[in-house]
Amino acid sequence: MKAAILSIGTELLFGQVVNTNAAYLSKQLNLLGFDVMYHYTVGDNPKRLQEIIGTAFKDCDLIITTGGLGPTQDDLTKEVVCEVFNDVMITDEKILKWLESYFIKHRRIMTENNKKQANMPSRAIIFDNDAGTAPGFALEEKEKIIICLPGPPREMTRMFQLKALPYLEKKTDEVIYYRMIRTFGIGESQLETDLLDFITNQKDPTLATYAKEGECSLRIASKRKTQEEAEAAVNEMIEKIMPVIGDYIYSLDDENLADVVGNLLLKKNISISCAESCTGGMFAETVTTLPGISKVFDRGLVTYSNKAKMEELGVKEATLERFGAVSREVAVEMAEGLKRASDSRLCISVTGIAGPDGGTPEKPVGLAYICAILDEKTVTKEIRMRNVSRRWNRNYSVLSMLNIVYKLLLDE
Amino acid sequence: MKAAILSIGTELLFGQVVNTNAAYLSKQLNLLGFDVMYHYTVGDNPKRLQEIIGTAFKDCDLIITTGGLGPTQDDLTKEVVCEVFNDVMITDEKILKWLESYFIKHRRIMTENNKKQANMPSRAIIFDNDAGTAPGFALEEKEKIIICLPGPPREMTRMFQLKALPYLEKKTDEVIYYRMIRTFGIGESQLETDLLDFITNQKDPTLATYAKEGECSLRIASKRKTQEEAEAAVNEMIEKIMPVIGDYIYSLDDENLADVVGNLLLKKNISISCAESCTGGMFAETVTTLPGISKVFDRGLVTYSNKAKMEELGVKEATLERFGAVSREVAVEMAEGLKRASDSRLCISVTGIAGPDGGTPEKPVGLAYICAILDEKTVTKEIRMRNVSRRWNRNYSVLSMLNIVYKLLLDE
Repeated sequence: MKAAILSIGTELLFGQVVNTNAAYLSKQLNLLGFDVMYHYTVGDNPKRLQEIIGTAFKDCDLIITTGGLGPTQDDLTKEVVCEVFNDVMITDEKILKWLESYFIKHRRIMTENNKKQANMPSRAIIFDNDAGTAPGFALEEKEKIIICLPGPPREMTRMFQLKALPYLEKKTDEVIYYRMIRTFGIGESQLETDLLDFITNQKDPTLATYAKEGECSLRIASKRKTQEEAEAAVNEMIEKIMPVIGDYIYSLDDENLADVVGNLLLKKNISISCAESCTGGMFAETVTTLPGISKVFDRGLVTYSNKAKMEELGVKEATLERFGAVSREVAVEMAEGLKRASDSRLCISVTGIAGPDGGTPEKPVGLAYICAILDEKTVTKEIRMRNVSRRWNRNYSVLSMLNIVYKLLLDE
Repeated sequence: MKAAILSIGTELLFGQVVNTNAAYLSKQLNLLGFDVMYHYTVGDNPKRLQEIIGTAFKDCDLIITTGGLGPTQDDLTKEVVCEVFNDVMITDEKILKWLESYFIKHRRIMTENNKKQANMPSRAIIFDNDAGTAPGFALEEKEKIIICLPGPPREMTRMFQLKALPYLEKKTDEVIYYRMIRTFGIGESQLETDLLDFITNQKDPTLATYAKEGECSLRIASKRKTQEEAEAAVNEMIEKIMPVIGDYIYSLDDENLADVVGNLLLKKNISISCAESCTGGMFAETVTTLPGISKVFDRGLVTYSNKAKMEELGVKEATLERFGAVSREVAVEMAEGLKRASDSRLCISVTGIAGPDGGTPEKPVGLAYICAILDEKTVTKEIRMRNVSRRWNRNYSVLSMLNIVYKLLLDE
């Protein structure tokens, strides 16, 4: 069944609020096997709202609206929907009683306009709101369905899960299953080129690539009669692409690289410390995002100045002078000094030029050196980033460090 | 002029990505005096894309699209827009040369599909992309304008600011001027209460508050015939609110607290180092976001384990045992140890419980201690955060540290 999400609220058109509702509902509807065809956003304007409902119903059989159910004058969703569905508004006595007791319970005065929230289209299937005061509803006519939910995300998600979801499950007989595969070290166009045979011949499962600051994801989705069939189709496709791009994959289930690495460190109980220059603490910050990581993360030394590199890590002045602070040699001495200081099994260092200034023809912005030592094994790597921005360079350096740790841990 | 935002990309309809572009562009267009009437989202489907452009142009004279400009097969925006505007696609030799040199410079192989990005409608006004490979463009016909921008928010916002904004400024004759005032240490409802008289009596300038993870902003905006009038009205209002909330304000021009602090450190040439526990490097990472900060930022020691606190900072075992790692006493010893190690004029430390686990009734999740030493002056502070999340607690701790540094620097 084809569906549209219709978000109602002038604050969205002012850009004061990011529309997270549309993304949430889309994900939920897709999982139920609905095809979400459009998102629409309109302001609190009855004429335009009515028009857009008409437009959406041309292609779609289901519309989910959010917003415009509250007590104030500009909340008009119910009235407009009622007109589109040729229904009449009535006061729902059950809702009115509930509203009255709600205000007594919360020691608030029930202003006159709050009673408006008890008015409902006469044929509506009412969805109680247990996180606020505005009830939602579903209305059906001639194979067309509209579901109206409140605007605040907390109320909306709760009403969707408790009321709209069970209602919708009865309306569909298809299931979508998908897995989001995360990769590092391969660009989107290269990923697509490598997978071109699978992508161009796709019918079901479908493959789609997504680029995200230095990373690339691949979504494999299948729509079948049963959950089992869809799962089997997706997993079969994963087996086919593994020989092609498996080297770049670090998660089959949309995990962050930092979480994958952190959980591996915890599972294998390998202590880790880091020494950072250009990333300024971002590696430590990223790794310590994971709750419980204190069991294995010992310390991070952000040696920004040369003085700090010498004092904290024992980097030699001669090495700094001869090779420069951004060099493979300094990265190695940083990691070795960290090993002496921390005694962590895994020590990783980075030194580079994050930009926007500080680059030279020989050592441009975006150049970085990483050194990782796991027990007796040492790995060094030069990375050359296209100079997008300081933020990008720092982020990509951290991802590269995480990826090196990931590969070391896989071999362990 | 009436405008619509049209977001293109199946990933939006799958709910995999939250549409921040629509909010960003709406805000920008409103500031320019455009009326944003609709947001639309469609998938990578040429027929539906063409239809929705037609629908949007019925009411609106300006459409801004995002997405679908990339090198892959499902990127179709240019071709569809070209057809709607009765134009023909040509290969732009300048873009093609630029693309080729881009790939050489970044040592990447230019796959065949990348050449597609040099194809453009013949009448298009090209917008260069200096943050990615897909150029954007504007196309006009009979009072109708379409502007096509790339989908990744970083590329889109940059192209909007550098290319689309100057282009659009010529199309409008009203001026909105606003200043975004940033505060720390006051909640949104308190801020609104303190400013209630100004907010309820507002006509022009308008005041609006925005809450954002532990911070609160205030937007003062005026829409007038000339830039000068609007500026004067906004600045007059700022003078009025200063006696009321001035103590909480750290920027009148939407700067980050970290940038304000970083620039003050640079201006006053005061060296800084930090010692972090619960924030795991986030303070160092945040401060070093500012380009050029290496002139004053010496080092950051992320002493996560007790061992690291003792070895790197000379925190006494007896202090850790008697008061616990999360205590005012340990924060002070961390800052003092850092002072000895780094000799920076400003040394700041933090120790706390970021959660979600590790809290006790006496020391709950959200408790943190900060100690800052500037020359001979020592400041300590206990903060108690409502336990929203690990991320929130870490972020709020860093903001509190920055705010302490800010106040110290103001007095300096």
